[in-house]
Amino acid sequence: MRSLLLVTAAALLMGAAPAKKLLTPSDIVAGAPAGAWRTIPADDLLILDLASGGRVVIQLAPAFAPVHVANIKALARGGYWNGATIYRVQDNYVAQWGLNESDKPWPVGVTPKPPAEYTRSLAGLKITPLGYPDAYAPGAGFADGWPVAYNSKAGWADLTHCYGSVGVGRDLSPDTGTGGELYAVIGNAPRQLDRVIAIVGRVIEGIDKLSTLPRGSEALGFYKDKAQYVPIASIRIAADMPVADRPSYEVMDTASASFASYVKVRANRHDDFYIAPAGGVDLCNVQVPVRKKAG
Amino acid sequence: MRSLLLVTAAALLMGAAPAKKLLTPSDIVAGAPAGAWRTIPADDLLILDLASGGRVVIQLAPAFAPVHVANIKALARGGYWNGATIYRVQDNYVAQWGLNESDKPWPVGVTPKPPAEYTRSLAGLKITPLGYPDAYAPGAGFADGWPVAYNSKAGWADLTHCYGSVGVGRDLSPDTGTGGELYAVIGNAPRQLDRVIAIVGRVIEGIDKLSTLPRGSEALGFYKDKAQYVPIASIRIAADMPVADRPSYEVMDTASASFASYVKVRANRHDDFYIAPAGGVDLCNVQVPVRKKAG
Repeated sequence: MRSLLLVTAAALLMGAAPAKKLLTPSDIVAGAPAGAWRTIPADDLLILDLASGGRVVIQLAPAFAPVHVANIKALARGGYWNGATIYRVQDNYVAQWGLNESDKPWPVGVTPKPPAEYTRSLAGLKITPLGYPDAYAPGAGFADGWPVAYNSKAGWADLTHCYGSVGVGRDLSPDTGTGGELYAVIGNAPRQLDRVIAIVGRVIEGIDKLSTLPRGSEALGFYKDKAQYVPIASIRIAADMPVADRPSYEVMDTASASFASYVKVRANRHDDFYIAPAGGVDLCNVQVPVRKKAG
Repeated sequence: MRSLLLVTAAALLMGAAPAKKLLTPSDIVAGAPAGAWRTIPADDLLILDLASGGRVVIQLAPAFAPVHVANIKALARGGYWNGATIYRVQDNYVAQWGLNESDKPWPVGVTPKPPAEYTRSLAGLKITPLGYPDAYAPGAGFADGWPVAYNSKAGWADLTHCYGSVGVGRDLSPDTGTGGELYAVIGNAPRQLDRVIAIVGRVIEGIDKLSTLPRGSEALGFYKDKAQYVPIASIRIAADMPVADRPSYEVMDTASASFASYVKVRANRHDDFYIAPAGGVDLCNVQVPVRKKAG
């Protein structure tokens, strides 16, 4: 009786909805037709396996940061990350991994100085507007399955820093980072980093393997001792794994009617627990639905 | 060289600022005069000590949820939480603690059915507007050291669900929860809960003791087995502790010039790392500065 949201869970587990039951976001996801889903190409899935056994799956975003994403594929395929660790975990901010201050040579196919892929042209992007105000850009919405901010007048769009977003660590500008050091957001959306760092993807499974790690005690959450570094067993592209071992995922088409309903209900929760629909929703509180495909 | 933000940290550690150095939020906090700070009353500090040794400190908000906060003090003082545990940790959402489905009688002084303290009157509140749009309410800003949303026309203000906010678990409306089950936000600000649940305070130290806990595998992040529950050694009000043992904190006055500068720079990061100031900031990305007072 005193457990927040317990009843909502019970309602979800009931199966057949009672006559007057109003739809929840979960209901909409569960009821979305097959045509509302898009399979993520195996070549765009980065599989990070921790030595401890946990797995983190990242969907890459070649349409937004093509050179950085190509680098990441070359780094994975060239064995660059052999011996990589998670060496920085800052509370309410990011977990970061790679080789940390290494002088290891780049594998073949890596562009050492990629362009600043912080925004891309709006041309060729079909944007579904969020419909609610955003503090960080004139427009906010979704394109091709991703949360984006945009400026119609200036003609740019950018991937936004939401929970789970994966970006490229870099030094001071004009360095844009190569992709060897990556971070995932594990706290409140740090949107101040939008258009300042290249975002290359998002964690679609296993973010808890990063968010539960001990926080580093040094400035910016770096671990003090190398003994605290969290070893990574492998970082691979799913397409390079044996077919039987590959995980596969689908993302909801953000131009679909199902997604429009989903956003609407996220902004106007009216199921049992919610007594006062907000009438609005923040971009990063509309997590685009992703589901694992049966193997 | 490939470690995100390392150089920014180095700049912060340099001490005397070079002539052209632009202020960071940290610079403004470090330079704020004594008059820009307010001591938090010891009677408004809830000290949660885990059996494992970690400490979580919560500032209570009696000006926003007076009956619920009075309940929490009565629960702490009446020994209600003896044997309490953290029994629910949901990734990117909340960590929740209390007795979970207990029938233990309420201590003296507890109001079993508090009013719906989801908003309060704007009368008597001095609000410093954020100055940027908010997706969840007509207005967003700060009052008395707290982030708030408000509606000037309707005359209400409410505490918002930001990272670290502490709220009262409840069952379906019109139940408002008593205060025996509390949760802290450990993910992206779940603002959809604003005006739906009573917020009673915020974690001002030790949120990582909650955010790093293993996530529960059951629906809504409940732990499956009681063996996974995280035992709490004690929950006390600081004013009830021996003076020598009490921690003490100051919060920045949100009506001060220092805070105005802080918000401005949060919205327009222009220090070395930031190549493109956002020109805006989200309410929950302006964490009100809090600092521990020397003992």
